[in-house]
Amino acid sequence: MDGIIYLAPLCALLGLLFAGYSYMKVKKEGEGTEVMKKIAAAIHTGAMVYLNRQYKAIAVFVVVLAVVLAFLLPSGPLTAACFVLGAGLSATAGYIGMYTATHANVRTTNAARRGITEAFKVSFASGSVMGMSVVGLGLFGLSVAFIGLSAVMPAAPQADVVNILAGFSLGASSIALFARVGGGIFTKAADVGADLVGKVEAGIPEDDPRNPAVIADNVGDNVGDIAGMGADLYESYVGSVIATMLLGAATAAVAFPNVDPMNVILLPIIIAAVGIVASIIGSFFVTTNKAESSAIHLAFNKGLLVALVLVVVSTYFITNAMLGEYGFGIFVATIAGLIAGFLIGQITEYYTSFDRKPTLEIAKSCQTGAATNIITGFAKGMESTLFPVIIIGVAIFFAFQFAGLYGIAIAAVGMLATLGISLAVDAYGPVADNAGGIAEMSHQDPQVREITDTLDAVGNTTAAIGKGFAIGSAALTALALFSAYAHAVSPADAPTITIDILSTPVFIGLLIGAMLPFLFSSMTMMAVGRAAYQIVVEVRRQFKEIKGLMEGKADPDYESCIAISTNSALKEMIAPGILAIVAPLLIGVVLGKEALGGLLAGSLVSGFMLAITMANAGGAWDNAKKYIEQGHFGGKGSDAHKAGVTGDTVGDPFKDTSGPALNILLKLMSIVAVVFAPLFL
Amino acid sequence: MDGIIYLAPLCALLGLLFAGYSYMKVKKEGEGTEVMKKIAAAIHTGAMVYLNRQYKAIAVFVVVLAVVLAFLLPSGPLTAACFVLGAGLSATAGYIGMYTATHANVRTTNAARRGITEAFKVSFASGSVMGMSVVGLGLFGLSVAFIGLSAVMPAAPQADVVNILAGFSLGASSIALFARVGGGIFTKAADVGADLVGKVEAGIPEDDPRNPAVIADNVGDNVGDIAGMGADLYESYVGSVIATMLLGAATAAVAFPNVDPMNVILLPIIIAAVGIVASIIGSFFVTTNKAESSAIHLAFNKGLLVALVLVVVSTYFITNAMLGEYGFGIFVATIAGLIAGFLIGQITEYYTSFDRKPTLEIAKSCQTGAATNIITGFAKGMESTLFPVIIIGVAIFFAFQFAGLYGIAIAAVGMLATLGISLAVDAYGPVADNAGGIAEMSHQDPQVREITDTLDAVGNTTAAIGKGFAIGSAALTALALFSAYAHAVSPADAPTITIDILSTPVFIGLLIGAMLPFLFSSMTMMAVGRAAYQIVVEVRRQFKEIKGLMEGKADPDYESCIAISTNSALKEMIAPGILAIVAPLLIGVVLGKEALGGLLAGSLVSGFMLAITMANAGGAWDNAKKYIEQGHFGGKGSDAHKAGVTGDTVGDPFKDTSGPALNILLKLMSIVAVVFAPLFL
Repeated sequence: MDGIIYLAPLCALLGLLFAGYSYMKVKKEGEGTEVMKKIAAAIHTGAMVYLNRQYKAIAVFVVVLAVVLAFLLPSGPLTAACFVLGAGLSATAGYIGMYTATHANVRTTNAARRGITEAFKVSFASGSVMGMSVVGLGLFGLSVAFIGLSAVMPAAPQADVVNILAGFSLGASSIALFARVGGGIFTKAADVGADLVGKVEAGIPEDDPRNPAVIADNVGDNVGDIAGMGADLYESYVGSVIATMLLGAATAAVAFPNVDPMNVILLPIIIAAVGIVASIIGSFFVTTNKAESSAIHLAFNKGLLVALVLVVVSTYFITNAMLGEYGFGIFVATIAGLIAGFLIGQITEYYTSFDRKPTLEIAKSCQTGAATNIITGFAKGMESTLFPVIIIGVAIFFAFQFAGLYGIAIAAVGMLATLGISLAVDAYGPVADNAGGIAEMSHQDPQVREITDTLDAVGNTTAAIGKGFAIGSAALTALALFSAYAHAVSPADAPTITIDILSTPVFIGLLIGAMLPFLFSSMTMMAVGRAAYQIVVEVRRQFKEIKGLMEGKADPDYESCIAISTNSALKEMIAPGILAIVAPLLIGVVLGKEALGGLLAGSLVSGFMLAITMANAGGAWDNAKKYIEQGHFGGKGSDAHKAGVTGDTVGDPFKDTSGPALNILLKLMSIVAVVFAPLFL
Repeated sequence: MDGIIYLAPLCALLGLLFAGYSYMKVKKEGEGTEVMKKIAAAIHTGAMVYLNRQYKAIAVFVVVLAVVLAFLLPSGPLTAACFVLGAGLSATAGYIGMYTATHANVRTTNAARRGITEAFKVSFASGSVMGMSVVGLGLFGLSVAFIGLSAVMPAAPQADVVNILAGFSLGASSIALFARVGGGIFTKAADVGADLVGKVEAGIPEDDPRNPAVIADNVGDNVGDIAGMGADLYESYVGSVIATMLLGAATAAVAFPNVDPMNVILLPIIIAAVGIVASIIGSFFVTTNKAESSAIHLAFNKGLLVALVLVVVSTYFITNAMLGEYGFGIFVATIAGLIAGFLIGQITEYYTSFDRKPTLEIAKSCQTGAATNIITGFAKGMESTLFPVIIIGVAIFFAFQFAGLYGIAIAAVGMLATLGISLAVDAYGPVADNAGGIAEMSHQDPQVREITDTLDAVGNTTAAIGKGFAIGSAALTALALFSAYAHAVSPADAPTITIDILSTPVFIGLLIGAMLPFLFSSMTMMAVGRAAYQIVVEVRRQFKEIKGLMEGKADPDYESCIAISTNSALKEMIAPGILAIVAPLLIGVVLGKEALGGLLAGSLVSGFMLAITMANAGGAWDNAKKYIEQGHFGGKGSDAHKAGVTGDTVGDPFKDTSGPALNILLKLMSIVAVVFAPLFL
């Protein structure tokens, strides 16, 4: 065992320390008036109720799957232990992030009463807690598990050790499944339910405290965009590192004959470790004292750029030092991933921002009604797959040319190296969003509301970029895991299997794989409808039965709506969850390991397109509506606005449920294939 | 050259004779009143204007591509000749079909004044002209070209002869591109344009003769559902036969060593020939003397069943006689395709008929507004990919198990063997639809309108089935062509190339391929919007400028709307058309033949899903609206109905433009790869 590995838990702890420091920053701020405290407490309690309920379900799931792993696989008990660790740390990161965010929202509102600089500080500090917890816990667990496994089985070949470590990644995927799919259903059920009865039927504004589902809606923002996004990226982060280690262990001797294979295996961990430090340093550059949204964007970009440059420079020296003559090729591959991640985010921003042509065109089409809005938005969403495909294509082309299959995997690691800061930027958004809701509900002065609105608007842009980045990294991680799978099912002393599309089982696998994202999206979309309906019924009941509610004299029962959302989310995610786990196992057993390879590739390419289409169409519809609300094409209340609202409502499950859930489907199926590979040999 | 080949042109001529006989049946009927004659003449003239204008554009395209072929390929001039022949005969079939349909519509209306039996006879006879022209001209041209080529180059290996014949299939694809993509844009531009100004703005009913776009709308039905559908299936028919011949020539010696390779090559032609005779016999069983729609369905099913049984029985003996010990395996493969085609049609019917759960659920969701209607419809559309994938998967599994890659291709031939009668059933629909429009415009008695409505309702079901069948056969044909391509780019004396997904160029090809259907659909969808906008402007102009138009005292200028639709359709199809032809060439040249294989497979699987999703969502939205119009959930004019209309409008380009256009994309890219294969060697 190389001593350099100890760098990883060290840097990870540094990240966790920074998370703690950021949390202190959040807690330093006051909570404001009694009304504010009361609302914030309701959101916080709601979020904790959701998490506790969900974690109980997860615990059952994890125990069952751990037992299955322990009995079914050659190194079962150790794999199961890694699995439990990976899942436990992801859940912990999600808990920390949610806990902080639901404390930071009201503090952001309170700080906004003094000015935007203060409010921005609080909300970004909360994002940093999430970002650093995810990368800190992820890398800490991963590296400690690897050190521990190496100590427990000193005589085992490195490949065997890393294979067991794959269980850690499966744990991450399991939590992501619950957080992203369940969370996606929760958030949109609450949102749609609150809007349908509150805004449409009762005619009260959004975020009105009389609406029984309003707290569930605010909880939902945290559930979807903090816990869900965090678990999704934790999964990508961990998955890309482990896939690279797997490929390193499998190919080092042949692909990089002149270096210590351990260096090839450890490289992704070291890049990730350096990325954490770079992210911490970058975070100190995220400051502004101006009130415009452009200044906030600039602050973010400064911080991200610093982190990026630090990673690029240090990766150059690290690859050189660790991999000698192959160093430069692997450096290029890493940078290819990093650049691709940046560009995909920009494309998403282009397609969903109302400063740009696509969304403007969609807004314009609202003038001829909801149908043309839907058609235009959907067409633009489909069109938006072009450039991400080219970007990913070019990135993997270069990565492969310069460093083979290992290069493609390390590109994914490169893309995610600065996750500590980029997730912080992303997780800042829902805090600002919630802060706005609290300002509205607690009837703050217009200038306070204006500040939270500015922060929220920036948050919408960073959320769009984050979504594109999440899809891109999911695709690249899934591709890395797919390559790792191919090596895992190849006989030890023979060349890698070929997954020949001309072989009929492979083609059938490809066909079924391409279908699964469609079926999965359909299931999650219908789930939102059913869950939202439950909320609608409950809100209607409360409006009818609680006397004095509409007059503001009685409080609604917020908890019941949260409980309903939580329960239906958990119930509704069972079927898609089972599909994601069982489909690869079934095809692998029935049609063979090559067919399973076909299935993974098919779902990867079709899921990537569908995810981008849905995320960008949804984001664009949202902003097209907002553009109209700013007074264009007749403004609020006009026919164009009504058409815009229809598009936005269609887009909600597209962008916040089905689209993001596809990220999980792709990665989960791949890691299931990797972990259960011994069954298909 | 085996004597049995002469059976093919003979049977094809028989089919053409039957087409002539059916045409006589149509012409025997009278044209009715002066008003009816006038309307029918306008539609007929409009259709001919469209065809003439389009065929001129096609002629230019065909000449250019023929010259390219002649100079670029080893056997260029002969390939170019086959190409021109294939294109010319497809265009002829389309012309005959359109010519007949636009004569049969008014005669169906006139016959409906006497009763449903008479009206049904006329409309089905018109469908038979289309069905038999397509299979008759397709098989006649194909077989005569093969005989001619064999005579011209007697010393050449059979594989070379069949390779040249592939040009015939490219010709078919070129016409299909124009007819399906251009036609799809025409029909929906006219439809949407007519509805937006007529129904929505001016408040006049559908099919009102005062609407300047009403004739263009009626022409559009023929353009999309007769010429477009006919060219699409002509392409599948010809493509599947030629792909099977190619695979036969490439693999016969190894796969079927004990039989005359010529028998392996000729088998698909012979099955197609027998299928024509079976279709003719089946057509005689399509009769009814009852007035219910169920009786008409029964009549169709009787005819189809007779044809199916005849094909199954004769295929059993033919395969036995021609291929000896391999006969049974190939028989099973053929039947697998036949059954798959039938089942896919049934699935489409299930998902789009309002007697069934999916569409009822969509109709129900209209009660909560347009957004929930769109979400539910889209989710159901995505869900509807599940069973077609399983059906195709099982069919190709059996076909391959029993007869190898050749088996998969012959399964496509089996699926299309009874095309003569199944296309007749399909092409009956738009005639009945037009007949209803003419009845409305000429103010017929309610009972006449009732008869045409009944015929039209049956036509909607057969259209849905036909759409599913067209997608399924396109997928299977594209798969057969894909296999043929792989053989075409394999070195003559080496084993077939492998298209290994783990190879990075192949994966990049797969990724780009999966993206192309999304991009292509986006382009065609936006094209409809732009073209419809032109119509809207023109109709508004006429309403404003032509005095006495709204009072029925002056006639609108129908021709200008037809001209606008025609011109924009032709203009708008250039970009997607170029994409479909250039993308495979570019990838093949830049990334290599394996990457091109990846591209074909990627577009095949993702395009198949998208085509089914769009076709079924569109069909279901249409029927959900009709279900509400029957008086459910508030009936016409209710909020639910408005939501239903929005869904229907969104579904229009889904099901009639972008969805069907994908069939062409898949097949066209595959045949381009096959024909230009020598460039990638």
